Amino acid sequence: MPDVPESHPRKDSLSARQKIVDGAKRGLLADSAMIAHGRGEAFDYLLGEKTTESATMAIRRVATLLTSAERPVISTNGNTAVLAGESMIRVAAVVGCPIEVNLYYRTPERMSGLLSLLGEQRDSVAKEKGPSQFKGDWSEAVRSVRILGDEADFRIEGLEGPRALCTEDGIGLADLILVPLEDGDRCEALISLGKLVCVIDLNPLSRTARMASVTIVDEVSRAAISLLSEVLNPTEVEGEWDNDAALRDSLKHISNAIDRL
Amino acid sequence: MPDVPESHPRKDSLSARQKIVDGAKRGLLADSAMIAHGRGEAFDYLLGEKTTESATMAIRRVATLLTSAERPVISTNGNTAVLAGESMIRVAAVVGCPIEVNLYYRTPERMSGLLSLLGEQRDSVAKEKGPSQFKGDWSEAVRSVRILGDEADFRIEGLEGPRALCTEDGIGLADLILVPLEDGDRCEALISLGKLVCVIDLNPLSRTARMASVTIVDEVSRAAISLLSEVLNPTEVEGEWDNDAALRDSLKHISNAIDRL
Repeated sequence: MPDVPESHPRKDSLSARQKIVDGAKRGLLADSAMIAHGRGEAFDYLLGEKTTESATMAIRRVATLLTSAERPVISTNGNTAVLAGESMIRVAAVVGCPIEVNLYYRTPERMSGLLSLLGEQRDSVAKEKGPSQFKGDWSEAVRSVRILGDEADFRIEGLEGPRALCTEDGIGLADLILVPLEDGDRCEALISLGKLVCVIDLNPLSRTARMASVTIVDEVSRAAISLLSEVLNPTEVEGEWDNDAALRDSLKHISNAIDRL
Repeated sequence: MPDVPESHPRKDSLSARQKIVDGAKRGLLADSAMIAHGRGEAFDYLLGEKTTESATMAIRRVATLLTSAERPVISTNGNTAVLAGESMIRVAAVVGCPIEVNLYYRTPERMSGLLSLLGEQRDSVAKEKGPSQFKGDWSEAVRSVRILGDEADFRIEGLEGPRALCTEDGIGLADLILVPLEDGDRCEALISLGKLVCVIDLNPLSRTARMASVTIVDEVSRAAISLLSEVLNPTEVEGEWDNDAALRDSLKHISNAIDRL
Protein backbone atom coordinates (compact mmCIF):
# COMPACT_ATOMS: atom_id res chain seq x y z
CA MET A 1 0.00 0.00 0.00
CA PRO A 2 1.32 3.48 -0.77
CA ASP A 3 2.51 5.81 2.00
CA VAL A 4 -0.27 7.91 3.46
CA PRO A 5 0.50 11.62 3.90
CA GLU A 6 0.04 13.09 7.41
CA SER A 7 -2.70 15.38 6.13
CA HIS A 8 -4.86 12.60 4.64
CA PRO A 9 -8.38 12.89 6.09
CA ARG A 10 -8.58 9.13 6.54
CA LYS A 11 -5.02 8.66 7.82
CA ASP A 12 -6.02 6.75 10.99
CA SER A 13 -8.11 4.30 9.04
CA LEU A 14 -5.40 3.73 6.45
CA SER A 15 -2.70 3.30 9.06
CA ALA A 16 -4.86 0.78 10.94
CA ARG A 17 -5.28 -1.08 7.64
CA GLN A 18 -1.52 -1.17 7.20
CA LYS A 19 -1.07 -2.58 10.71
CA ILE A 20 -3.50 -5.37 9.87
CA VAL A 21 -1.75 -6.14 6.58
CA ASP A 22 1.62 -6.25 8.40
CA GLY A 23 0.18 -8.40 11.22
CA ALA A 24 -1.17 -10.87 8.66
CA LYS A 25 2.24 -11.07 6.96
CA ARG A 26 3.80 -11.86 10.34
CA GLY A 27 1.32 -14.74 10.76
CA LEU A 28 -0.35 -13.17 13.80
CA LEU A 29 -3.88 -13.12 12.41
CA ALA A 30 -6.52 -15.67 11.50
CA ASP A 31 -7.18 -16.29 7.81
CA SER A 32 -10.29 -14.19 7.85
CA ALA A 33 -8.97 -11.41 10.10
CA MET A 34 -8.44 -9.02 7.21
CA ILE A 35 -11.97 -9.62 6.01
CA ALA A 36 -13.29 -8.89 9.49
CA HIS A 37 -11.22 -5.72 9.54
CA GLY A 38 -12.68 -4.63 6.21
CA ARG A 39 -16.22 -5.12 7.52
CA GLY A 40 -15.29 -2.94 10.47
CA GLU A 41 -13.83 -0.31 8.15
CA ALA A 42 -17.13 -0.05 6.29
CA PHE A 43 -19.13 0.41 9.49
CA ASP A 44 -16.62 2.92 10.82
CA TYR A 45 -16.82 4.82 7.56
CA LEU A 46 -20.58 5.04 8.02
CA LEU A 47 -20.09 6.19 11.61
CA GLY A 48 -17.91 9.02 10.30
CA GLU A 49 -14.76 7.42 11.78
CA LYS A 50 -15.35 9.02 15.14
CA THR A 51 -16.60 8.01 18.56
CA THR A 52 -20.30 8.72 18.91
CA GLU A 53 -21.88 10.03 22.08
CA SER A 54 -23.48 6.68 22.87
CA ALA A 55 -20.11 4.97 22.38
CA THR A 56 -18.60 7.46 24.84
CA MET A 57 -21.32 6.54 27.35
CA ALA A 58 -20.59 2.85 26.80
CA ILE A 59 -16.86 3.42 27.30
CA ARG A 60 -17.59 5.28 30.54
CA ARG A 61 -19.80 2.42 31.74
CA VAL A 62 -17.14 -0.17 30.90
CA ALA A 63 -14.53 1.88 32.78
CA THR A 64 -16.73 1.90 35.87
CA LEU A 65 -17.40 -1.83 35.61
CA LEU A 66 -13.71 -2.63 34.98
CA THR A 67 -12.51 -0.65 37.99
CA SER A 68 -15.13 -2.13 40.31
CA ALA A 69 -15.01 -5.78 39.17
CA GLU A 70 -13.50 -8.44 41.47
CA ARG A 71 -11.54 -10.32 38.81
CA PRO A 72 -11.61 -8.43 35.51
CA VAL A 73 -9.58 -9.58 32.52
CA ILE A 74 -8.95 -8.12 29.08
CA SER A 75 -9.10 -10.78 26.39
CA THR A 76 -7.28 -9.98 23.15
CA ASN A 77 -7.14 -11.66 19.78
CA GLY A 78 -4.75 -10.92 16.92
CA ASN A 79 -6.56 -7.89 15.51
CA THR A 80 -6.85 -6.28 18.96
CA ALA A 81 -3.18 -6.86 19.79
CA VAL A 82 -2.05 -5.45 16.46
CA LEU A 83 -4.37 -2.43 16.50
CA ALA A 84 -4.63 -1.59 20.18
CA GLY A 85 -2.24 -3.82 22.16
CA GLU A 86 -0.32 -0.97 23.78
CA SER A 87 -3.47 0.90 24.77
CA MET A 88 -4.92 -2.26 26.28
CA ILE A 89 -1.73 -2.76 28.30
CA ARG A 90 -2.04 0.79 29.62
CA VAL A 91 -5.66 0.13 30.60
CA ALA A 92 -4.65 -3.14 32.29
CA ALA A 93 -1.88 -1.34 34.19
CA VAL A 94 -4.33 1.21 35.56
CA VAL A 95 -7.02 -1.35 36.37
CA GLY A 96 -4.50 -3.87 37.69
CA CYS A 97 -5.86 -6.76 35.64
CA PRO A 98 -4.30 -9.40 33.41
CA ILE A 99 -4.50 -9.61 29.64
CA GLU A 100 -5.31 -12.99 28.14
CA VAL A 101 -4.52 -13.88 24.57
CA ASN A 102 -7.52 -15.91 23.57
CA LEU A 103 -8.10 -17.00 19.99
CA TYR A 104 -11.08 -18.39 18.22
CA TYR A 105 -8.77 -20.08 15.70
CA ARG A 106 -6.08 -21.14 18.16
CA THR A 107 -2.75 -22.36 16.75
CA PRO A 108 0.55 -22.68 18.66
CA GLU A 109 2.26 -20.33 16.17
CA ARG A 110 -0.27 -17.54 16.54
CA MET A 111 -0.39 -17.96 20.33
CA SER A 112 3.35 -17.65 20.71
CA GLY A 113 3.58 -14.81 18.17
CA LEU A 114 0.92 -12.81 19.99
CA LEU A 115 2.34 -13.53 23.45
CA SER A 116 5.71 -12.22 22.21
CA LEU A 117 4.12 -9.18 20.61
CA LEU A 118 2.28 -8.26 23.81
CA GLY A 119 5.46 -8.83 25.80
CA GLU A 120 7.32 -6.38 23.53
CA GLN A 121 4.46 -3.91 23.76
CA ARG A 122 4.52 -4.18 27.57
CA ASP A 123 8.27 -3.46 27.59
CA SER A 124 7.74 -0.45 25.42
CA VAL A 125 4.80 0.90 27.45
CA ALA A 126 6.78 0.40 30.70
CA LYS A 127 9.39 2.83 29.37
CA GLU A 128 6.83 5.59 28.86
CA LYS A 129 6.39 8.42 31.32
CA GLY A 130 2.84 7.25 32.00
CA PRO A 131 -0.36 9.29 32.14
CA SER A 132 -0.21 12.39 34.36
CA GLN A 133 -3.32 11.33 36.32
CA PHE A 134 -1.76 7.98 37.23
CA LYS A 135 -0.71 7.78 40.88
CA GLY A 136 2.10 5.37 41.58
CA ASP A 137 5.04 3.83 39.77
CA TRP A 138 3.98 3.55 36.11
CA SER A 139 6.79 1.30 35.07
CA GLU A 140 6.08 -1.12 37.92
CA ALA A 141 2.34 -1.09 37.24
CA VAL A 142 2.95 -1.92 33.60
CA ARG A 143 5.51 -4.63 34.31
CA SER A 144 3.11 -6.30 36.71
CA VAL A 145 0.42 -6.75 34.02
CA ARG A 146 0.30 -10.50 33.53
CA ILE A 147 -0.01 -11.74 29.98
CA LEU A 148 -1.92 -15.00 30.06
CA GLY A 149 -3.00 -17.48 27.45
CA ASP A 150 -0.08 -19.83 27.06
CA GLU A 151 -1.54 -22.32 29.49
CA ALA A 152 -4.96 -23.45 28.32
CA ASP A 153 -6.03 -25.08 31.60
CA PHE A 154 -9.73 -24.27 31.49
CA ARG A 155 -12.65 -24.82 29.13
CA ILE A 156 -15.53 -22.41 28.54
CA GLU A 157 -18.68 -24.41 29.14
CA GLY A 158 -21.02 -24.69 26.17
CA LEU A 159 -18.33 -24.47 23.47
CA GLU A 160 -16.73 -27.27 21.47
CA GLY A 161 -13.15 -27.77 20.34
CA PRO A 162 -10.16 -25.44 20.65
CA ARG A 163 -12.35 -22.35 20.79
CA ALA A 164 -13.44 -23.44 24.30
CA LEU A 165 -9.90 -23.24 25.65
CA CYS A 166 -8.87 -20.48 28.03
CA THR A 167 -6.79 -19.80 31.11
CA GLU A 168 -8.32 -20.47 34.52
CA ASP A 169 -6.58 -17.47 36.04
CA GLY A 170 -7.91 -15.24 33.27
CA ILE A 171 -11.24 -15.81 31.55
CA GLY A 172 -11.90 -18.98 33.54
CA LEU A 173 -12.43 -17.29 36.91
CA ALA A 174 -13.14 -13.74 35.72
CA ASP A 175 -16.34 -11.96 36.70
CA LEU A 176 -15.89 -9.39 33.93
CA ILE A 177 -14.28 -9.82 30.53
CA LEU A 178 -13.50 -6.95 28.22
CA VAL A 179 -13.25 -8.69 24.91
CA PRO A 180 -12.90 -6.49 21.84
CA LEU A 181 -13.84 -8.13 18.54
CA GLU A 182 -15.37 -11.29 19.97
CA ASP A 183 -17.17 -14.06 18.15
CA GLY A 184 -20.93 -14.37 18.73
CA ASP A 185 -20.89 -17.97 19.98
CA ARG A 186 -18.27 -17.27 22.53
CA CYS A 187 -19.90 -14.09 23.72
CA GLU A 188 -23.09 -16.08 24.27
CA ALA A 189 -21.27 -18.85 26.17
CA LEU A 190 -19.55 -16.37 28.48
CA ILE A 191 -22.81 -14.56 29.18
CA SER A 192 -24.48 -17.91 30.00
CA LEU A 193 -21.82 -18.47 32.62
CA GLY A 194 -23.06 -15.35 34.40
CA LYS A 195 -20.06 -13.22 33.52
CA LEU A 196 -20.25 -9.56 32.54
CA VAL A 197 -19.05 -9.35 28.96
CA CYS A 198 -18.04 -5.94 27.57
CA VAL A 199 -17.26 -5.85 23.87
CA ILE A 200 -16.01 -3.40 21.26
CA ASP A 201 -17.70 -4.05 17.93
CA LEU A 202 -18.25 -1.72 14.99
CA ASN A 203 -21.27 -3.66 13.73
CA PRO A 204 -24.19 -2.79 16.00
CA LEU A 205 -26.18 -5.57 14.36
CA SER A 206 -23.72 -8.38 15.04
CA ARG A 207 -24.73 -11.18 17.38
CA THR A 208 -21.87 -10.22 19.69
CA ALA A 209 -23.03 -6.61 19.83
CA ARG A 210 -26.59 -7.64 20.64
CA MET A 211 -25.57 -10.32 23.14
CA ALA A 212 -23.02 -8.43 25.25
CA SER A 213 -23.62 -6.79 28.64
CA VAL A 214 -22.16 -3.53 27.33
CA THR A 215 -21.28 -2.93 23.68
CA ILE A 216 -18.94 -0.15 22.66
CA VAL A 217 -19.76 0.50 18.98
CA ASP A 218 -16.43 2.06 18.06
CA GLU A 219 -13.13 1.37 16.36
CA VAL A 220 -10.96 -0.60 18.79
CA SER A 221 -7.88 1.63 18.87
CA ARG A 222 -9.95 4.79 19.26
CA ALA A 223 -12.09 3.18 21.97
CA ALA A 224 -9.03 1.92 23.84
CA ILE A 225 -7.56 5.43 24.03
CA SER A 226 -10.82 6.81 25.46
CA LEU A 227 -11.09 3.87 27.81
CA LEU A 228 -7.69 4.72 29.26
CA SER A 229 -8.83 8.27 30.09
CA GLU A 230 -11.96 6.89 31.71
CA VAL A 231 -10.30 4.25 33.88
CA LEU A 232 -7.88 6.91 35.10
CA ASN A 233 -10.85 8.91 36.28
CA PRO A 234 -13.86 6.59 36.61
CA THR A 235 -17.13 8.36 37.24
CA GLU A 236 -20.12 7.15 39.16
CA VAL A 237 -22.72 6.03 36.67
CA GLU A 238 -26.31 5.73 37.66
CA GLY A 239 -29.06 3.33 36.73
CA GLU A 240 -29.11 0.18 34.66
CA TRP A 241 -27.25 0.11 31.36
CA ASP A 242 -29.66 -0.13 28.42
CA ASN A 243 -27.52 -1.80 25.78
CA ASP A 244 -30.31 -1.98 23.22
CA ALA A 245 -30.79 1.77 23.44
CA ALA A 246 -27.07 2.27 22.80
CA LEU A 247 -27.18 -0.03 19.78
CA ARG A 248 -30.22 1.77 18.42
CA ASP A 249 -28.40 5.06 18.79
CA SER A 250 -25.44 3.75 16.79
CA LEU A 251 -27.77 2.52 14.08
CA LYS A 252 -29.44 5.89 13.97
CA HIS A 253 -26.02 7.44 13.49
CA ILE A 254 -25.22 5.15 10.58
CA SER A 255 -28.61 5.74 9.06
CA ASN A 256 -28.29 9.54 9.38
CA ALA A 257 -24.81 9.43 7.87
CA ILE A 258 -26.21 7.66 4.84
CA ASP A 259 -29.00 10.19 4.47
CA ARG A 260 -26.53 13.06 4.78
CA LEU A 261 -24.12 11.78 2.17
CA MET B 1 -12.92 -21.46 8.54
CA PRO B 2 -15.46 -24.15 9.52
CA ASP B 3 -17.65 -25.82 6.91
CA VAL B 4 -20.87 -23.97 6.28
CA PRO B 5 -24.03 -26.10 6.21
CA GLU B 6 -26.19 -25.92 3.03
CA SER B 7 -29.06 -24.48 5.05
CA HIS B 8 -27.09 -21.54 6.49
CA PRO B 9 -28.97 -18.32 5.69
CA ARG B 10 -25.71 -16.58 4.81
CA LYS B 11 -24.15 -19.50 2.92
CA ASP B 12 -23.37 -17.50 -0.26
CA SER B 13 -21.59 -14.80 1.69
CA LEU B 14 -19.58 -17.32 3.70
CA SER B 15 -18.63 -19.33 0.64
CA ALA B 16 -17.50 -16.15 -1.15
CA ARG B 17 -15.39 -15.36 1.91
CA GLN B 18 -13.80 -18.80 1.70
CA LYS B 19 -12.96 -18.26 -1.98
CA ILE B 20 -11.21 -15.01 -1.11
CA VAL B 21 -9.25 -16.65 1.73
CA ASP B 22 -8.20 -19.46 -0.63
CA GLY B 23 -7.29 -17.00 -3.38
CA ALA B 24 -5.12 -15.04 -0.96
CA LYS B 25 -3.33 -18.24 0.10
CA ARG B 26 -2.60 -18.98 -3.56
CA GLY B 27 -1.03 -15.53 -3.91
CA LEU B 28 -3.62 -14.33 -6.40
CA LEU B 29 -4.76 -11.28 -4.46
CA ALA B 30 -3.30 -7.93 -3.45
CA ASP B 31 -2.36 -7.45 0.22
CA SER B 32 -5.45 -5.46 0.92
CA ALA B 33 -7.85 -7.56 -1.17
CA MET B 34 -9.31 -9.30 1.86
CA ILE B 35 -9.91 -5.98 3.56
CA ALA B 36 -11.68 -4.70 0.46
CA HIS B 37 -13.77 -7.87 0.45
CA GLY B 38 -14.73 -7.32 4.06
CA ARG B 39 -15.87 -3.78 3.33
CA GLY B 40 -18.02 -5.19 0.55
CA GLU B 41 -19.44 -7.81 2.93
CA ALA B 42 -20.60 -5.09 5.29
CA PHE B 43 -22.36 -3.14 2.54
CA ASP B 44 -23.90 -6.31 1.15
CA TYR B 45 -25.12 -7.23 4.61
CA LEU B 46 -26.83 -3.84 4.80
CA LEU B 47 -28.34 -4.41 1.35
CA GLY B 48 -29.83 -7.65 2.64
CA GLU B 49 -27.45 -9.73 0.48
CA LYS B 50 -29.72 -9.52 -2.51
CA THR B 51 -29.89 -7.64 -5.79
CA THR B 52 -32.02 -4.52 -5.46
CA GLU B 53 -34.37 -3.31 -8.14
CA SER B 54 -32.09 -0.42 -9.07
CA ALA B 55 -29.17 -2.85 -9.37
CA THR B 56 -31.28 -4.99 -11.69
CA MET B 57 -31.95 -1.91 -13.83
CA ALA B 58 -28.22 -1.13 -13.88
CA ILE B 59 -27.39 -4.72 -14.88
CA ARG B 60 -29.94 -4.49 -17.70
CA ARG B 61 -28.42 -1.21 -18.89
CA VAL B 62 -24.90 -2.65 -18.81
CA ALA B 63 -26.10 -5.68 -20.82
CA THR B 64 -27.52 -3.39 -23.50
CA LEU B 65 -24.34 -1.30 -23.62
CA LEU B 66 -22.09 -4.40 -23.68
CA THR B 67 -23.95 -5.99 -26.57
CA SER B 68 -24.05 -2.78 -28.59
CA ALA B 69 -20.49 -1.53 -27.98
CA GLU B 70 -17.92 -1.60 -30.79
CA ARG B 71 -14.99 -2.89 -28.74
CA PRO B 72 -16.11 -3.91 -25.26
CA VAL B 73 -13.76 -5.57 -22.80
CA ILE B 74 -14.24 -7.08 -19.34
CA SER B 75 -11.39 -6.10 -17.03
CA THR B 76 -10.83 -8.40 -14.06
CA ASN B 77 -8.66 -8.19 -10.99
CA GLY B 78 -7.91 -10.94 -8.47
CA ASN B 79 -11.09 -10.65 -6.44
CA THR B 80 -13.28 -10.70 -9.55
CA ALA B 81 -11.49 -13.72 -11.04
CA VAL B 82 -11.75 -15.64 -7.78
CA LEU B 83 -15.38 -14.73 -7.07
CA ALA B 84 -16.90 -14.49 -10.52
CA GLY B 85 -14.32 -15.55 -13.11
CA GLU B 86 -16.45 -18.32 -14.64
CA SER B 87 -19.54 -16.12 -14.87
CA MET B 88 -17.51 -13.37 -16.53
CA ILE B 89 -16.18 -15.87 -19.08
CA ARG B 90 -19.76 -16.91 -19.86
CA VAL B 91 -20.72 -13.26 -20.34
CA ALA B 92 -17.67 -12.68 -22.56
CA ALA B 93 -18.58 -15.75 -24.64
CA VAL B 94 -22.08 -14.43 -25.26
CA VAL B 95 -20.93 -10.86 -25.96
CA GLY B 96 -17.92 -12.01 -27.96
CA CYS B 97 -15.46 -9.79 -26.11
CA PRO B 98 -12.06 -10.37 -24.52
CA ILE B 99 -11.28 -10.46 -20.81
CA GLU B 100 -8.25 -8.49 -19.63
CA VAL B 101 -6.49 -9.21 -16.37
CA ASN B 102 -5.63 -5.75 -15.16
CA LEU B 103 -4.23 -5.13 -11.71
CA TYR B 104 -3.78 -2.02 -9.65
CA TYR B 105 -0.91 -3.69 -7.79
CA ARG B 106 0.63 -5.47 -10.77
CA THR B 107 3.26 -8.13 -10.09
CA PRO B 108 4.46 -10.83 -12.52
CA GLU B 109 3.43 -13.57 -10.06
CA ARG B 110 -0.12 -12.36 -9.66
CA MET B 111 -0.47 -11.71 -13.39
CA SER B 112 0.62 -15.21 -14.33
CA GLY B 113 -1.41 -16.82 -11.54
CA LEU B 114 -4.57 -15.03 -12.64
CA LEU B 115 -4.01 -15.70 -16.34
CA SER B 116 -3.67 -19.41 -15.50
CA LEU B 117 -6.75 -19.36 -13.28
CA LEU B 118 -8.86 -17.73 -16.02
CA GLY B 119 -7.48 -20.22 -18.55
CA GLU B 120 -8.58 -23.10 -16.31
CA GLN B 121 -11.96 -21.47 -15.76
CA ARG B 122 -12.38 -21.07 -19.55
CA ASP B 123 -11.59 -24.76 -20.09
CA SER B 124 -14.13 -25.72 -17.48
CA VAL B 125 -16.85 -23.38 -18.84
CA ALA B 126 -16.22 -24.67 -22.38
CA LYS B 127 -17.18 -28.15 -21.20
CA GLU B 128 -20.57 -26.98 -19.94
CA LYS B 129 -23.75 -27.49 -21.90
CA GLY B 130 -24.16 -23.74 -22.16
CA PRO B 131 -27.27 -21.62 -21.53
CA SER B 132 -30.41 -22.81 -23.33
CA GLN B 133 -31.01 -19.36 -24.88
CA PHE B 134 -27.54 -19.33 -26.45
CA LYS B 135 -27.62 -19.86 -30.20
CA GLY B 136 -24.48 -21.36 -31.68
CA ASP B 137 -21.63 -23.59 -30.54
CA TRP B 138 -21.12 -22.89 -26.84
CA SER B 139 -17.79 -24.62 -26.55
CA GLU B 140 -16.41 -22.73 -29.53
CA ALA B 141 -17.75 -19.40 -28.28
CA VAL B 142 -16.10 -19.97 -24.91
CA ARG B 143 -12.79 -21.13 -26.34
CA SER B 144 -12.64 -18.04 -28.54
CA VAL B 145 -12.77 -15.68 -25.53
CA ARG B 146 -9.32 -14.10 -25.50
CA ILE B 147 -7.69 -13.66 -22.12
CA LEU B 148 -5.48 -10.59 -22.32
CA GLY B 149 -3.19 -8.85 -19.89
CA ASP B 150 0.13 -10.60 -20.29
CA GLU B 151 1.40 -8.04 -22.75
CA ALA B 152 1.33 -4.58 -21.21
CA ASP B 153 1.80 -2.64 -24.45
CA PHE B 154 -0.34 0.39 -23.64
CA ARG B 155 -0.53 3.04 -20.94
CA ILE B 156 -3.70 4.63 -19.59
CA GLU B 157 -3.22 8.38 -19.94
CA GLY B 158 -3.34 10.31 -16.69
CA LEU B 159 -2.00 7.53 -14.45
CA GLU B 160 1.51 7.02 -13.11
CA GLY B 161 3.56 3.85 -12.64
CA PRO B 162 2.53 0.21 -13.11
CA ARG B 163 -1.13 0.97 -12.49
CA ALA B 164 -1.20 2.75 -15.89
CA LEU B 165 -0.28 -0.42 -17.77
CA CYS B 166 -2.82 -2.25 -19.90
CA THR B 167 -3.18 -4.13 -23.17
CA GLU B 168 -3.77 -2.13 -26.36
CA ASP B 169 -6.09 -4.78 -27.75
CA GLY B 170 -8.13 -4.74 -24.55
CA ILE B 171 -8.60 -1.65 -22.38
CA GLY B 172 -6.32 0.42 -24.63
CA LEU B 173 -8.66 0.56 -27.64
CA ALA B 174 -11.93 -0.35 -25.91
CA ASP B 175 -14.95 1.94 -26.13
CA LEU B 176 -16.61 0.22 -23.16
CA ILE B 177 -14.99 -1.40 -20.15
CA LEU B 178 -16.88 -3.49 -17.65
CA VAL B 179 -14.61 -3.34 -14.64
CA PRO B 180 -15.92 -4.83 -11.41
CA LEU B 181 -14.20 -3.64 -8.25
CA GLU B 182 -12.18 -0.83 -9.80
CA ASP B 183 -10.04 1.76 -8.08
CA GLY B 184 -11.30 5.37 -8.09
CA ASP B 185 -8.24 6.90 -9.79
CA ARG B 186 -8.33 4.47 -12.62
CA CYS B 187 -12.05 4.77 -13.11
CA GLU B 188 -11.57 8.53 -13.38
CA ALA B 189 -8.71 8.19 -15.89
CA LEU B 190 -10.72 5.83 -18.11
CA ILE B 191 -13.73 8.14 -18.05
CA SER B 192 -11.49 11.09 -19.00
CA LEU B 193 -10.43 9.16 -22.08
CA GLY B 194 -14.05 9.20 -23.20
CA LYS B 195 -14.66 5.52 -22.57
CA LEU B 196 -17.88 4.12 -21.12
CA VAL B 197 -16.98 2.60 -17.76
CA CYS B 198 -19.43 0.18 -16.16
CA VAL B 199 -18.54 -0.93 -12.62
CA ILE B 200 -19.81 -3.32 -9.96
CA ASP B 201 -19.27 -1.83 -6.51
CA LEU B 202 -21.07 -2.56 -3.24
CA ASN B 203 -20.25 0.84 -1.77
CA PRO B 204 -22.55 3.38 -3.42
CA LEU B 205 -20.49 6.15 -1.84
CA SER B 206 -17.12 5.12 -3.27
CA ARG B 207 -15.40 7.39 -5.75
CA THR B 208 -15.58 4.62 -8.34
CA ALA B 209 -19.33 4.24 -7.84
CA ARG B 210 -19.90 7.97 -8.19
CA MET B 211 -17.52 8.36 -11.16
CA ALA B 212 -18.65 5.47 -13.38
CA SER B 213 -20.97 5.70 -16.39
CA VAL B 214 -23.14 2.94 -14.95
CA THR B 215 -22.70 1.53 -11.43
CA ILE B 216 -24.13 -1.82 -10.46
CA VAL B 217 -24.37 -1.71 -6.64
CA ASP B 218 -24.36 -5.44 -6.07
CA GLU B 219 -22.15 -8.33 -5.04
CA VAL B 220 -19.97 -9.26 -8.00
CA SER B 221 -20.82 -12.96 -8.29
CA ARG B 222 -24.55 -12.33 -7.95
CA ALA B 223 -24.40 -9.46 -10.46
CA ALA B 224 -22.41 -11.56 -12.94
CA ILE B 225 -25.07 -14.29 -12.92
CA SER B 226 -27.83 -11.75 -13.62
CA LEU B 227 -25.69 -10.09 -16.25
CA LEU B 228 -25.42 -13.38 -18.11
CA SER B 229 -29.21 -13.71 -18.30
CA GLU B 230 -29.47 -10.15 -19.54
CA VAL B 231 -26.82 -10.38 -22.28
CA LEU B 232 -28.53 -13.54 -23.52
CA ASN B 233 -31.67 -11.53 -23.95
CA PRO B 234 -30.78 -7.83 -24.06
CA THR B 235 -33.77 -5.52 -23.94
CA GLU B 236 -34.16 -2.10 -25.51
CA VAL B 237 -33.66 0.46 -22.79
CA GLU B 238 -34.95 3.95 -23.24
CA GLY B 239 -33.69 7.34 -22.18
CA GLU B 240 -30.47 8.47 -20.54
CA TRP B 241 -29.10 6.48 -17.60
CA ASP B 242 -29.29 8.49 -14.37
CA ASN B 243 -26.47 6.95 -12.36
CA ASP B 244 -26.92 9.32 -9.41
CA ALA B 245 -30.54 8.26 -9.08
CA ALA B 246 -29.45 4.61 -8.98
CA LEU B 247 -26.87 5.35 -6.30
CA ARG B 248 -29.42 7.26 -4.24
CA ASP B 249 -31.78 4.31 -4.51
CA SER B 250 -29.09 1.96 -3.17
CA LEU B 251 -28.39 4.31 -0.29
CA LYS B 252 -32.08 4.46 0.51
CA HIS B 253 -32.08 0.68 0.60
CA ILE B 254 -29.18 0.58 3.04
CA SER B 255 -30.74 3.25 5.16
CA ASN B 256 -34.13 1.48 5.23
CA ALA B 257 -32.46 -1.80 6.13
CA ILE B 258 -30.88 -0.15 9.13
CA ASP B 259 -34.17 1.33 10.24
CA ARG B 260 -35.89 -2.03 9.84
CA LEU B 261 -33.38 -3.97 11.89
